Amino acid sequence: MDAALTPDVFSRNCLSRLTLQGVTGRWGLLTVAALAQGPHRFGELRRRVDGISERMLSQTLQSLERNGFVDREVLHAIPPHVEYRLTDLGATIAPRLLALIEVLEGSMGEVLSAQERYDSEHPDLT
Amino acid sequence: MDAALTPDVFSRNCLSRLTLQGVTGRWGLLTVAALAQGPHRFGELRRRVDGISERMLSQTLQSLERNGFVDREVLHAIPPHVEYRLTDLGATIAPRLLALIEVLEGSMGEVLSAQERYDSEHPDLT
Repeated sequence: MDAALTPDVFSRNCLSRLTLQGVTGRWGLLTVAALAQGPHRFGELRRRVDGISERMLSQTLQSLERNGFVDREVLHAIPPHVEYRLTDLGATIAPRLLALIEVLEGSMGEVLSAQERYDSEHPDLT
Repeated sequence: MDAALTPDVFSRNCLSRLTLQGVTGRWGLLTVAALAQGPHRFGELRRRVDGISERMLSQTLQSLERNGFVDREVLHAIPPHVEYRLTDLGATIAPRLLALIEVLEGSMGEVLSAQERYDSEHPDLT
């Protein structure tokens, strides 16, 4: 691979930046994190990722599938249904997202204090 | 802390979801990742995070500062200037973001193959 073509998320036209945005965007991250807990049907995902619309979930899954993070599997049960699961690639990304979520959820006390401090120091902004 | 108030990014109204979006959004993630390499001035950040506008960088830094991830420091040099650096909290998040970027940048070959496969199986979408 040409060194000039080494993936670099800091470059605005690099495909890796687009891909990063796909798995860290508003819904991509939560969808991958939900699938890290096991395969889900569409309706299960929709309930888990609270607030996502049917249309957004469908677009998010399609983009995650196209980028190779998620597999869509038609199960020939009765009645037949579709399941979404992480691919091997998705499964290498997911723990990184979960680690991030865990740190953030554990830091909300600090975030709240920082916000109060900031708002009291910038009364003009509130 | 009330168990019902435990931070949960999957809940649509949880502050932790908003905070997650701040550090993983389009520009927040790249800005924190850039600052992981050390303090930067505004102009340096703007060049590093290729494609960000002055206005977006300024909003991004303000939000990161408010949430306690970034410190804005006025250095009384001649001429005086402003430097941005990660707080301790920012520094606990940054390695998680860098780990994610690294995996993704290293997976672009797989992502490209997945995209080609997907597009050939869905000729109606291209």
